Amino acid sequence: MLPKALQELIEALGTLPGVGPRSAERYAYYLLKTSDHNRMRLSEAVSDIAQGVKQCPMTYALIDASEDVSPLYSDPERNKHIVAVVEEPLDVIALEKTGLFRGTYHVLGGAISPIDGIGPDQLHIPELIERLQRDSVEEIILAMNSSVEGESTALYLQKFIDEADITIKITRLARGIPVGVDLEYADQITLSHALEGRQAI
Amino acid sequence: MLPKALQELIEALGTLPGVGPRSAERYAYYLLKTSDHNRMRLSEAVSDIAQGVKQCPMTYALIDASEDVSPLYSDPERNKHIVAVVEEPLDVIALEKTGLFRGTYHVLGGAISPIDGIGPDQLHIPELIERLQRDSVEEIILAMNSSVEGESTALYLQKFIDEADITIKITRLARGIPVGVDLEYADQITLSHALEGRQAI
Repeated sequence: MLPKALQELIEALGTLPGVGPRSAERYAYYLLKTSDHNRMRLSEAVSDIAQGVKQCPMTYALIDASEDVSPLYSDPERNKHIVAVVEEPLDVIALEKTGLFRGTYHVLGGAISPIDGIGPDQLHIPELIERLQRDSVEEIILAMNSSVEGESTALYLQKFIDEADITIKITRLARGIPVGVDLEYADQITLSHALEGRQAI
Repeated sequence: MLPKALQELIEALGTLPGVGPRSAERYAYYLLKTSDHNRMRLSEAVSDIAQGVKQCPMTYALIDASEDVSPLYSDPERNKHIVAVVEEPLDVIALEKTGLFRGTYHVLGGAISPIDGIGPDQLHIPELIERLQRDSVEEIILAMNSSVEGESTALYLQKFIDEADITIKITRLARGIPVGVDLEYADQITLSHALEGRQAI
């Protein structure tokens, strides 16, 4: 029913996360109508992405293929004694956008999830432990997602550090009511966290 | 902050309709992690789309570059005396999916919209009028969107055909309550249409 090339493009776009058939059709139609320049730009950006990006061997953040380590690590302005531990590379971007954090990052590459067969060994946890000593880290901020997997990973790390007798400050991101959400719409767990973590003013 | 290649891919994906920065980041990260095969598939599908698809010179539907006219027109099983007039090529797909229509299509290429500078001359209206006589069309179904632009286009066509003294049956798609929508949630205009168009059972 559809031209072959269009069908193929719709199917390829449909593999993107969260993109259903309708969205894929809209994207494909846009790409058909846009300029050659825009089409080539996307086509090349897609084919070049793997060669242009690599993992920082220190923090496992995504870096330019031409760099040795993440500029967020090598920058002398960044405090190497404070490490924010996150699940995924994009979490680094989210935290950086606040402009409030001047420490360094460590990307685990996921969270512990027995159902998906992801144990501590599949994550960059050994490398984190190594870093704690090498950089004489004073504080790690556990900035995992507040999902079951994120919580398990945070607990695992806490326990591991306790048992290895490493004296270090361990903190976690505050949990509470997000900006713009009315109290009456906040779920029970979030509200419990907000109560527990209440602060004197 | 982000690797250059990743930044570029996020920006290119962000030009797709309805894709914000967050979605673009997610798509880009997926494309970074997926297989070379999947990446190449999308990259090639995007760059090949313009060469693989063209407009049918008769119905203005999208067709394979190797075809002369739309198979939905050339198929002898399709009734050329009934023409469904739609705004965009994807509307043809939507109607075809019902499996109920055995006539042919005519894609206008948009709708009349003075604000966007689109008048009747920018649409394939002259070609439609020509077709009415050549194919001795007996009925045209106005299947424009139920937007202000769609309505104006339908009215324009109706008036044009009236004034040209072409005797032809003009119908439009029924407007009413969509499946799965509760009466109490239907908007007033839809409900008015549903009342006006009520049918004996």
